[in-house]
Amino acid sequence: MAKTAHRYLEIAPWVVEERGFNEERSEVSESIFALANEFMGVRGSFEEGYSGQTTQGSFFNGIYESGEHIYSTKFKGFADGWTYMVNSVDWLYTRIRLDDELLDLAKISFRDFSRKVDMRTGIVERSFVWDSASGKSIRIKFERMLSMHTSHLGVQQISLEAINFTGVVEIDVGLDFGVTYNLRQSQPWSLLKHEASSTHAASLGRTSSSGHRVFSSLHLKTSRDVETSTFHLDRLVGATVKMELEPNKVETITRIAANHSEKDSDLSDDTVWTSGFLKLKAEKNTTWESALKNQRSYWESVWKQVDVTIEGDDENQQGFRFCIFHLLQTYRGEDPRHNIGAKGLTGEHYWGVTWWDTETYCLPFYLFNNRRAAKNLVTYRHHTLPGAQKRARELHLEGARYPMCTIDGDEICDVWQHGDLEIHVSAAIAYGIWKYVHITGDKEFLRDHGAEILIEVARFYASRGGWGQRTGKFGYWGVMGPDEMHTMVNNNAYTNILAKKSFEWALEVLDELSKEAPEALSAIKAKTKLQEAELSDWKKKAENMDTMLDESSGIFEQHEGFFNMPHIDYLDIPDDQFPVQKKWPYVDLFRFDLIKQPDVLLFFFLFGSEYSEEALEKNLDYYEPRCSHESSLSPAIHSILSARLGRHKKAYEYARYSSRLDLDDYNNNTCEGLHVTSMAGAWMNLVYGFGGMKTDGDILSFCPTLPASWNGFGFKIHVEDDAVLSVKINTETVSFKLEGTGFIKISVFSELYSVTSDGICIPLPNTHRDQTGIQNPVEEGASGAKPKDRTDGLNLARQATYT
Amino acid sequence: MAKTAHRYLEIAPWVVEERGFNEERSEVSESIFALANEFMGVRGSFEEGYSGQTTQGSFFNGIYESGEHIYSTKFKGFADGWTYMVNSVDWLYTRIRLDDELLDLAKISFRDFSRKVDMRTGIVERSFVWDSASGKSIRIKFERMLSMHTSHLGVQQISLEAINFTGVVEIDVGLDFGVTYNLRQSQPWSLLKHEASSTHAASLGRTSSSGHRVFSSLHLKTSRDVETSTFHLDRLVGATVKMELEPNKVETITRIAANHSEKDSDLSDDTVWTSGFLKLKAEKNTTWESALKNQRSYWESVWKQVDVTIEGDDENQQGFRFCIFHLLQTYRGEDPRHNIGAKGLTGEHYWGVTWWDTETYCLPFYLFNNRRAAKNLVTYRHHTLPGAQKRARELHLEGARYPMCTIDGDEICDVWQHGDLEIHVSAAIAYGIWKYVHITGDKEFLRDHGAEILIEVARFYASRGGWGQRTGKFGYWGVMGPDEMHTMVNNNAYTNILAKKSFEWALEVLDELSKEAPEALSAIKAKTKLQEAELSDWKKKAENMDTMLDESSGIFEQHEGFFNMPHIDYLDIPDDQFPVQKKWPYVDLFRFDLIKQPDVLLFFFLFGSEYSEEALEKNLDYYEPRCSHESSLSPAIHSILSARLGRHKKAYEYARYSSRLDLDDYNNNTCEGLHVTSMAGAWMNLVYGFGGMKTDGDILSFCPTLPASWNGFGFKIHVEDDAVLSVKINTETVSFKLEGTGFIKISVFSELYSVTSDGICIPLPNTHRDQTGIQNPVEEGASGAKPKDRTDGLNLARQATYT
Repeated sequence: MAKTAHRYLEIAPWVVEERGFNEERSEVSESIFALANEFMGVRGSFEEGYSGQTTQGSFFNGIYESGEHIYSTKFKGFADGWTYMVNSVDWLYTRIRLDDELLDLAKISFRDFSRKVDMRTGIVERSFVWDSASGKSIRIKFERMLSMHTSHLGVQQISLEAINFTGVVEIDVGLDFGVTYNLRQSQPWSLLKHEASSTHAASLGRTSSSGHRVFSSLHLKTSRDVETSTFHLDRLVGATVKMELEPNKVETITRIAANHSEKDSDLSDDTVWTSGFLKLKAEKNTTWESALKNQRSYWESVWKQVDVTIEGDDENQQGFRFCIFHLLQTYRGEDPRHNIGAKGLTGEHYWGVTWWDTETYCLPFYLFNNRRAAKNLVTYRHHTLPGAQKRARELHLEGARYPMCTIDGDEICDVWQHGDLEIHVSAAIAYGIWKYVHITGDKEFLRDHGAEILIEVARFYASRGGWGQRTGKFGYWGVMGPDEMHTMVNNNAYTNILAKKSFEWALEVLDELSKEAPEALSAIKAKTKLQEAELSDWKKKAENMDTMLDESSGIFEQHEGFFNMPHIDYLDIPDDQFPVQKKWPYVDLFRFDLIKQPDVLLFFFLFGSEYSEEALEKNLDYYEPRCSHESSLSPAIHSILSARLGRHKKAYEYARYSSRLDLDDYNNNTCEGLHVTSMAGAWMNLVYGFGGMKTDGDILSFCPTLPASWNGFGFKIHVEDDAVLSVKINTETVSFKLEGTGFIKISVFSELYSVTSDGICIPLPNTHRDQTGIQNPVEEGASGAKPKDRTDGLNLARQATYT
Repeated sequence: MAKTAHRYLEIAPWVVEERGFNEERSEVSESIFALANEFMGVRGSFEEGYSGQTTQGSFFNGIYESGEHIYSTKFKGFADGWTYMVNSVDWLYTRIRLDDELLDLAKISFRDFSRKVDMRTGIVERSFVWDSASGKSIRIKFERMLSMHTSHLGVQQISLEAINFTGVVEIDVGLDFGVTYNLRQSQPWSLLKHEASSTHAASLGRTSSSGHRVFSSLHLKTSRDVETSTFHLDRLVGATVKMELEPNKVETITRIAANHSEKDSDLSDDTVWTSGFLKLKAEKNTTWESALKNQRSYWESVWKQVDVTIEGDDENQQGFRFCIFHLLQTYRGEDPRHNIGAKGLTGEHYWGVTWWDTETYCLPFYLFNNRRAAKNLVTYRHHTLPGAQKRARELHLEGARYPMCTIDGDEICDVWQHGDLEIHVSAAIAYGIWKYVHITGDKEFLRDHGAEILIEVARFYASRGGWGQRTGKFGYWGVMGPDEMHTMVNNNAYTNILAKKSFEWALEVLDELSKEAPEALSAIKAKTKLQEAELSDWKKKAENMDTMLDESSGIFEQHEGFFNMPHIDYLDIPDDQFPVQKKWPYVDLFRFDLIKQPDVLLFFFLFGSEYSEEALEKNLDYYEPRCSHESSLSPAIHSILSARLGRHKKAYEYARYSSRLDLDDYNNNTCEGLHVTSMAGAWMNLVYGFGGMKTDGDILSFCPTLPASWNGFGFKIHVEDDAVLSVKINTETVSFKLEGTGFIKISVFSELYSVTSDGICIPLPNTHRDQTGIQNPVEEGASGAKPKDRTDGLNLARQATYT
């Protein structure tokens, strides 16, 4: 499957707009125009119902349905149960009738359709003119928001304008628990309690297996007096409004929706109902205008601190903003029991679960844009530590074995190769802890939560490893690295190195605590029953870890025997066999030197400060031609590493898909939901790649390069809660300015600088400006990446539809 | 789980007898007293019904039910469907009532219970005295046989003797399709047609998914006139006999049963019914006595040619005979569409499917005892060649990829690690072809079928392999060898060497055909569209195959990286963790140097003539301590190889479980069915092990050793259809005699001899007689293998319950 830009949206710096209805891209738009506020999310489906292609979706973070996996053959240790983020109450439920004709864009006659999302307000707006069968025309506008100010609040405004008639239109406004979870074709909700009046409605539903409850309610406000009746049908409850319209007069119906979710089964239904109702009551005076004001002010203040700017390239400008917009909607530090799903809150695919890549791919964005969110992300891993400990016991191991994928901390991965062999997950958690503390200096978190996790992770790696009988080195047998095309290998370099780091981080932190906070250390030791012998054991294992570095070539062997694997030339694989993960028999994925995504190169990215350019060059030259990029996370890392070596053209080529992966539906699967993790990769691509930032050293360092088609770009880095480093690159210079008091030491092009609010300005070396004259990629690529694109030397034309 | 002898059966050379009913071993006895004749099999359940612990079973070879596998997550190439040998009509269905009390040994009062199987007749007999609630006593004897003379024929005789009364006993004699397939708790049969009269009954059933049909019928014969009525209830049909009994007079009811099975769905029900009925009619004059005469004469002539004798050890004498008895009941060359299931026709477990071990473990027994059966076994692989070709296409490969497990040729293995990675199966088929032709000289088979298979297998291996980038050698990546504790490895030595052999056999045969039968070769080439380039390709790949021989140590590395795997000392594993295949988390099986069964040692056994004693010694010394024997096929190979090196004590210790594995229920799972494949291993253990036979060289060679507790032993080897080599070993000599005309050249203790009907007698060297004075193993072992047994240096005390 070629990576092809499917352009149908307007280019504008702040607004994503669809002009005219693209029926065939209906579900893609449902993802693009999805909204979320961490607490909840809704797909951009038509609230009035649509009998065409649609995947309606309404999600509440952490609210899932659960069950037992059914295995054809189950071996000991396989994960028992599954959870999925359930499709919940459709709290935007609306039906509109005019002279008994139901508004359904798949069936009625309409014109002047447009919809847009404004990233400055987070409002999705959709409007069209309905020419009814009875000859009446009516202009309708739907607007919706999920409040960033009060996260249980959602607001919908429907504006109606009769064009050529006076008469009544009927509008049903309801709350529908009769929704379908599409991936399993199930209807998981039962209705516990409900009520409706002319001014409000409320409904309480419960999932059948997990017993999670969601309360949904609404205030109804209309611009004029209306006749109202209530309805209740199965799991749907609400009110019908008969509204009189006059020509050229806009009438509005506003739904102030208050939602509430509850996982605690100890609370009575009445208690949950009351808690929800209090939230509705609190919004009694809320209006569309008041909510809009809050929303606008929220985004204005946020953008001031997180915006990225691209000069001379509105497509990428729009694209990068779109990524940040959704990253902040998905997760913003509301609740440390939340995490980030691969599709955020925009679709059912990937079951709303959190993967190991939260720390490696998403955490940096939050660390440098929203510290509260970053802290919550690492705190989530402390909340879920008991599940990771339990999982380790199930696998006869010590410490904490963090799950491959999870919602509430329990491993739900039913594919044992991933769930049981990808032991690098625990190290990613330790990495997240280390990185968070390294950047924020939050020693309190370290003492309260972080050190315990580091100890438990080190214990896990101490118990899971073995000593090579030939090499005498410590390592891991029967594992899978991040490259999921080599399912069961021994001594995966990434796993070994991350395990070594995990030992070192634990030892370093314990050593530091012994000096700086001996009482805290005593408490931690008591809690974890830590023995001195464990420390020397970890030290020995770290020191003797097999890093898989081949001294003669300077290349890290991805795993034992990788260098001897039969070679398959990516270019010899016929086009129709891509993505190979779907087109090839499963076992064929594992018997060549073709890899899915960065594995050795991933630790070159994560610990960039530790490796010389020469070492990077050798390893990049070896692994890059072997990479199929059948993970959407792959190109960004290649782009960043290419940029570090001054390979501008490649860096730009790899980056081309990052910012607009979903806007242009490159992978043909945006309909399933937005690629939220990949969006975090896009931000890294810009900041770590073109910005040349490294964050694993003692100070932040930058080594920016300017792509040929850009006149300049800029981004911001939160260095303290109240200090933001603003970075701007143009064709001549790189400038840094600290928004806040004090100063920050940084390295730019390997020179040390101190930056204050006065800023500094440094010339951009010619070598750091791509002068190969690449044109805007979409103009050449929009019609589809042709086989000849392969001469780029990149494999990207055939990226998979994964993640 | 320790390997413990559970002795409850009487020791006798020809008869296995249970005296007194052992309720707790009821299902073990159902397996022990199972009968079969290749066409059909029945477990030794009580035909009169039993409300205690029972697993009734009636099987017809090749008759299965089918369905689709349900995978939690399915990847491309996973096997789609399953088949299982279905539990079929209970054609021995009987119910006996006396004064309205139903005969049910779980409920009634009875005494003098005994049952036995006589291996000279193949008759199972069971008798007891029933003391009824009404104070009447009646002696009952059930006898049954599955005719070896006419395989669709089964005969049951019930003898009734009133002891203290005159009166009527009621006996239901029926055919019951309402049976349960226990492993799925399903009732797979529907009744299509039935009839019953006072003299006969007939019934036709069909499986619901596969549409296979079984016809079952009976003639009823009684020793005196009786009153008869018929019954039909759901899927049960038959007749009720009211029989008048007088004291001390034995009356009999004889059921002459004729069964018929049909897989061809094109035939109408009427056609199948008629075919079955003709079989019943043909048995009109059959009586218990006439059937018994045929049965006795069959077994007499068979034992004359296949018997083994053990002098001074009745336990092993009985054990080895029991193995041969069941091997010949399971398979005897009736139908080339049949093969051998792991449990034969004695239980549902392992689904009645055929595994890759038919050729490596079972074929030798048939090759040297029943050539027709051996030919059918290899012909079966030609019948199923289309399925193997289809499977190769599904996996994007060339040639024939024979299934891991199958009934009719389609791969049904739902565990992809085995089904997709154990590519050594195809080589085992090629090995079978080669071995069959090598021993029999059946060139006609080679031309008609064998060559085509060899070509298709070579093609498979040519397409599945790869060239190591480091070694420049050809091999296989992403495979599993016979040692199923290393799930996904590269360059498994066994697989590579067998693939190399597969290339060589194909090339050798094609070369031979070009000289000896050029027209036949042309036909084969035309049929297989063989290209000359393929031959040079195979030659190159065979010549450059990575055999994994480590030149410096002389040890074959089981797979790439095996020598570096962390060591786990078998003796360090706590007792309660055995069998590790069930007790350990799945992934822990793969990360140590612990192996399940012979892998490198298996090709040392298969191609024993090619390796020096020195080479064997090095490899046995390396792999033996690493073997957990968690396959019942493992000890026999270790015994044979130990015997070759004159390690008498070890050879005997390993062999101790072979002959009586089921009789003494060593693995605690004989209740599931008999270990038929393991029984073939027991025969090999005796003949290849203590007999020291090698069959892969140009002539048969022998190097016998005598275990300490035996006074002598003997066995027979069919060297031609009409010539049997009789081998006898006693404490002083080894003698060979050809039963038949002509002569045969053999090697004995590396000296060449020519053997005729006059026989030869050679002194047994002292070194070939175990003088360590080991006592009969059961006497020391019956109470359970204690941890101290480990000082034997064998791991056998903890063999798994697998196969």
